[in-house]
Amino acid sequence: MATSAASKPSPEIIFSTLIAYQNAYILKTGIELDLFTAIAEGTNDAAALAQRLQASERGVRILADGLTVQGFLRKENGKYSLTPESALFLDKRSPAYMGGMAEFLASEENVNNFSKFADCVRKGGTVSNIGDNSKPVDHRWVNFARSMASMAGPMAGVLSQIVNASTATDIRVLDIAAGHGMYGITVAKNNPRVRVTAVDWAPVLEVAKENAQKAGVSERYSVRPGSAFDTDLGDGYDYILITNFLHHFDVPTCEMLLRRFHAALKPGGKTITVEFVPNEDRVSPPMAASFSLVMLAHTDAGDAYTFAEYEKMHRAAGFRNCALQQVPDLPQRLVMGEK
Amino acid sequence: MATSAASKPSPEIIFSTLIAYQNAYILKTGIELDLFTAIAEGTNDAAALAQRLQASERGVRILADGLTVQGFLRKENGKYSLTPESALFLDKRSPAYMGGMAEFLASEENVNNFSKFADCVRKGGTVSNIGDNSKPVDHRWVNFARSMASMAGPMAGVLSQIVNASTATDIRVLDIAAGHGMYGITVAKNNPRVRVTAVDWAPVLEVAKENAQKAGVSERYSVRPGSAFDTDLGDGYDYILITNFLHHFDVPTCEMLLRRFHAALKPGGKTITVEFVPNEDRVSPPMAASFSLVMLAHTDAGDAYTFAEYEKMHRAAGFRNCALQQVPDLPQRLVMGEK
Repeated sequence: MATSAASKPSPEIIFSTLIAYQNAYILKTGIELDLFTAIAEGTNDAAALAQRLQASERGVRILADGLTVQGFLRKENGKYSLTPESALFLDKRSPAYMGGMAEFLASEENVNNFSKFADCVRKGGTVSNIGDNSKPVDHRWVNFARSMASMAGPMAGVLSQIVNASTATDIRVLDIAAGHGMYGITVAKNNPRVRVTAVDWAPVLEVAKENAQKAGVSERYSVRPGSAFDTDLGDGYDYILITNFLHHFDVPTCEMLLRRFHAALKPGGKTITVEFVPNEDRVSPPMAASFSLVMLAHTDAGDAYTFAEYEKMHRAAGFRNCALQQVPDLPQRLVMGEK
Repeated sequence: MATSAASKPSPEIIFSTLIAYQNAYILKTGIELDLFTAIAEGTNDAAALAQRLQASERGVRILADGLTVQGFLRKENGKYSLTPESALFLDKRSPAYMGGMAEFLASEENVNNFSKFADCVRKGGTVSNIGDNSKPVDHRWVNFARSMASMAGPMAGVLSQIVNASTATDIRVLDIAAGHGMYGITVAKNNPRVRVTAVDWAPVLEVAKENAQKAGVSERYSVRPGSAFDTDLGDGYDYILITNFLHHFDVPTCEMLLRRFHAALKPGGKTITVEFVPNEDRVSPPMAASFSLVMLAHTDAGDAYTFAEYEKMHRAAGFRNCALQQVPDLPQRLVMGEK
C-alpha cells in the first residue's frame, strides 16, 4: 500500500512548474536589493535588514524566508545566514560574484520573449524583432557583456590550458563575438606568448577593452569592430575562439561563418567552439538540451546543435578534423575544428 | 579529492533559478497547444504533432524535447509519450485534467505582479491595484473559478469526510468566497443531508452555480451574492468553509471576518479553514512557506499565517476551540474553529 501511495501521480510538479517564474523574480530581487551582501556583512534579522536595505520589514521577512525555502539562505532562530553558494556567488565582495547575471538572464526582454512561447512554437522562431542577431542589437549585447562576464571564468581556464599546449612562440588568437572578452583576455593573461584580436560590434568591444585593461593585457589585445559576417578578420591565426555564437544561426549560416573562420586560420590552426551540445537524443544532458528552448524564444532559426550537426558543418566548411571534447563539471562542451 | 569536488559550490542553482520563468512558459505552451492530448491520442513524433497542432515542426520538436527534459514527456527513438502525471492531469480527456490551472497560475497579471517583486519588498505589499481583494475584482476571480476548480478535488474529499461525521439530520454549510464552489458542492454531493449556501461576488457565483448544476446538487445549493465583508450571511450553520480566503488579509481584518463567521454558526458549529499554514519557523514545509511570497506580490497585507497566528485570531473572534489538522499528501492544512 505504501508503495502504491508513493507512486501515485501528484499534480505538484505541474503546480510548481507553472509558478516557477516566481523563483526567478525572488532571486533577482534578493540580488537587486543586495540582500546577500548585507547578510554576509552580519545584518541577519528581518528588522535590521529592512533598515539597511531601506525596505519594509514585512517584505524583507517574506523575501528572506522565500530564499531560505529555495536554498539560497539558511534560517535559524530568526537569523539568516548564507549558503556556501550564496557566499561565493552572491556576496558582492566575493571575487566570484555572479549576481550580475540576473540583469541578462531574467531581463524584461528575455522574459517577454518567453511569454510569447506558444507563438514561437507556431512560427518556429522568435516573435521578437531581435531576429537573427546578424545586425547590431547593442542594448542587448552590451548588457550581456556587462552582466555575464562572471560566468566565463571556469571555461576560460579550460581554453587557456588548450592554448598553452601550443609550442608556437607567438600565438595568435581571434575571439569571435567577444562580448565581455573574458575568454580571449583570460587566455592572454595566462600566457605571455598570446596576442588576441577581438571581433564584435564597437559598443560591445568597449566593454572588452575595459576588461583587457583591468586584466593588464591591453598591449597584446587588439580589436576589429564590426560583424563577424563581414568584417575583415585578418588571417594566420593559431586559434579562433567561437564562444556561444553559432547557436544563434541556422545551419547554412553556421557553415558560411565557419568557412570564413577556416580562411582566417593558419594551416594546422584550430577553431575552439564553446557551446551547449546536447546528445543525439536532444533531451540530455538537461542544460545543454534545454538551450534549444532559449534559441527558439530569442532567435529566428538558432539551435543547440548536436555534435553530429557540428561535425557536418565543419566538414562542409573545409575543416579536416572535428572533435568533441567534454569539459568536467561544466555544462558546455568544446567542438574543435582543425584546418 | 572526489569529496572536495562534489562539495565545491556550483553556480548552477543560481543560473537555473534565474531562468526558471522559462519552465513556466514552456509548460503553459504545451497545455495551450494541447500537445499532451495529441500525444495521448497517438500522435507522437514532431512532424505529425506539428501538423496536428498547426505549428512549425522545429517549434514542436524544441517544445517537446524541452518538456521531456522537464519530466512531462518521455522520448524514445524520436517518439514522445506521456508520463503518468501528464496522462492523468494534462490529457484533456482525463477526468482529473488540471491544465486549466495555467490560465490562473501563469496568467499575465500574476507574472506581472511578480516582475515588480523588488518594489513589493520595499513597500511591503503588492504594487498592483488588486489591493486588499475586499472589493470586486471580477476578471481575476472569475478566471480563478474557471481555471482552478480541478485543484480542489482531493481537499474537497477531506472536507466531505469531516462533514459526514456530523449526526445532524439537516446539515447546513456556508461556503465563504466559494469561487468555483467545488468544496461546498462536493460536500453536498457526498451527503444528501447537506444544504450549502455559497457567498461570493455575483459573477463568480455564476461559475459555482454551473458547477452545482453539473454535480446535480442545485436543489440543495443556494447563493448569497456579495462580499463576505458585508453581505448578510444568515445564521445557524453547522459548518462554515473558509477555503483559501483569510490569507488575503491582515490580522485585524481576519479577526473581524472570523467574528462575522462566529456569529453565523450555530452553537457547537465549526469553521473549517483550508490554508497554506507554514510551521512556526516560516520556512517549512516548502509549499506552505512559499505562499507568503504570493501574498506579498498580490495583496496589500495578506500572508501565509502560522497556526499560532490563526489560533490567536480565532480566540480574539470568540471561538472556544481552535485546532490544526494535517492532511496527508496535500500541501494545505485545516484550521478548525469551534463555537
